[in-house]
Amino acid sequence: MHSSMLSFWVDGSSASIREAEVPQPKAGEALVRVLIAGVCNTDLEILKGYMGFSGIVGHEFVGVCEDAPDGFEHLAKQRVVGEINLACRSCGTCGGGGTRARNHCPKRTVLGILDKHGTYAQWLTLPAVNLHVVPKGVSTENAAFAEPLAAAFRILEQGLVRDDDEVAVVGDGKLGILISEVLGRHVKKGTTLFGRHHEKMDLVRAPIDKMLSTDALPDRAATFDVVVDATGSPAGMDVSRQLCKPLGTICLKSTCAAGADFNTAPFVIDELRVIGSRCGPFEPALELLNQGLDLTPLISATFPLEQAEEAVKKAAEKGTIKVQIRVAPDP
Amino acid sequence: MHSSMLSFWVDGSSASIREAEVPQPKAGEALVRVLIAGVCNTDLEILKGYMGFSGIVGHEFVGVCEDAPDGFEHLAKQRVVGEINLACRSCGTCGGGGTRARNHCPKRTVLGILDKHGTYAQWLTLPAVNLHVVPKGVSTENAAFAEPLAAAFRILEQGLVRDDDEVAVVGDGKLGILISEVLGRHVKKGTTLFGRHHEKMDLVRAPIDKMLSTDALPDRAATFDVVVDATGSPAGMDVSRQLCKPLGTICLKSTCAAGADFNTAPFVIDELRVIGSRCGPFEPALELLNQGLDLTPLISATFPLEQAEEAVKKAAEKGTIKVQIRVAPDP
Repeated sequence: MHSSMLSFWVDGSSASIREAEVPQPKAGEALVRVLIAGVCNTDLEILKGYMGFSGIVGHEFVGVCEDAPDGFEHLAKQRVVGEINLACRSCGTCGGGGTRARNHCPKRTVLGILDKHGTYAQWLTLPAVNLHVVPKGVSTENAAFAEPLAAAFRILEQGLVRDDDEVAVVGDGKLGILISEVLGRHVKKGTTLFGRHHEKMDLVRAPIDKMLSTDALPDRAATFDVVVDATGSPAGMDVSRQLCKPLGTICLKSTCAAGADFNTAPFVIDELRVIGSRCGPFEPALELLNQGLDLTPLISATFPLEQAEEAVKKAAEKGTIKVQIRVAPDP
Repeated sequence: MHSSMLSFWVDGSSASIREAEVPQPKAGEALVRVLIAGVCNTDLEILKGYMGFSGIVGHEFVGVCEDAPDGFEHLAKQRVVGEINLACRSCGTCGGGGTRARNHCPKRTVLGILDKHGTYAQWLTLPAVNLHVVPKGVSTENAAFAEPLAAAFRILEQGLVRDDDEVAVVGDGKLGILISEVLGRHVKKGTTLFGRHHEKMDLVRAPIDKMLSTDALPDRAATFDVVVDATGSPAGMDVSRQLCKPLGTICLKSTCAAGADFNTAPFVIDELRVIGSRCGPFEPALELLNQGLDLTPLISATFPLEQAEEAVKKAAEKGTIKVQIRVAPDP
């Protein structure tokens, strides 16, 4: 094995392709050879300085587990995807409440986001407990959506949707589309996607209603029990609030720095419930992909790792949906 | 009966004492002679133009029911307090979910806040279903706290606190004090009030811990399951967020226009649940007062109706807790 590798590294707000050491797995960690890294909006924020992260960028990936620790022999030589939070597994938070509580471990590191090198590289390490084997029938390109698709399933895991709830998703970016795929299949009473681009909304395969935000808003104001905000913008957040019934739920799936006129009054008056939602369960995401959900139409462009800089530029362009970085060919 | 009365009226952002018509009860409404009107921070906001309200100010009151509609004879000549939302009682929201859903009736008017004359007057009308008889043992001064005390009980009614939750209240204004009185008696694991004024926090009779926000924050960061924000300020909201555990609940009891740097990221990362909380049940509030809770030490000053303008000025002064307007002597 080579001792050095190619990687895309951010330091402050400057980023570049760099030679880096191949990481050495710590106790309990697996060594993974990366096949595809997915570009997420969070990566673009990190490149602008978000989280003050310094190191190898990226948290979405599919790879081949080349070295598995004892007890995880079933991972060896398999294609894997991985959960991005590395919990200490010994503090009160980790001991208290299962997998999802461990995502909130105060001592955690987070792949490509917080004190842990990420996926825009030829190799990475992750605790073997974080890894999930990709089913044979799922292409590497589709498997690279497992992490954001799991984040969409988090909404169901949090129990935010009851059987008789009507649900809206606001935002037709990649996260809004994945959320629509999940909720469109699981919400009994119906899911409506509010977006600004017919051509993006048309990519959703699940049975949902699709509405242009601007046209439909007046008619649908205050008619949804649950509204998922996947816009990451103050304007989108305001649309979400307007769509939500009093006593309803707004699920925040993406973050935004709201404008100066952000006011909590409508949230108090309508007694709204606003709930943040982050990383989710990989099992149902991989299962949905294995059932045949094809997300490759969302891929706007693919770049080799050497062109990671072009990849993130392309990801930031208007009209782009998903950008993937193909690090190595399928085995 | 006189056909005109004294009232304190706002129109745009100018307010003054005015002669007004004594209101005529509509079908189902009672006519109430006001004894005390309480000054709430919302009134001060309304005087600055909030809600674009034009009419008689005020929503807290104790009065004598001088004319009760058929079926409500038990109210006649009794001291009463009243719920402030006037629901249409015929729309889907009103039909759907009981008293509290009716507080969100889209056609509602709200006493002294939205299209309905308020309590800074010699007379008012309210639907008889909104009225509650004040127990004999409760003084009129204490009964005037029923409405904000009911708002404090709303937190319990919403089921925001579980048996094993540790709770913080942020803000030692009058609402924070009332919330502390309620939660301090009902939260099994303990309630901590974070304020900036020892002399205000010392007014709380319930068994709670009291901490100066500035000193205690670092030690208690991320240790509370439920945090009630009663500050109405962006800085207070930030303290609430810092005190709240990941996956915890922040209850918004007062509204604020947050500053330009308000950012949703920490709420998403920690998957916090932010829940607005408004009007609550009067029954437990009157019951707590009847058990002997004496809130009169919170009264900083009392003014006659003729001096309503001085009353609201005093209420806005630093150090003032509660201001009451004594409209008529007890019967």
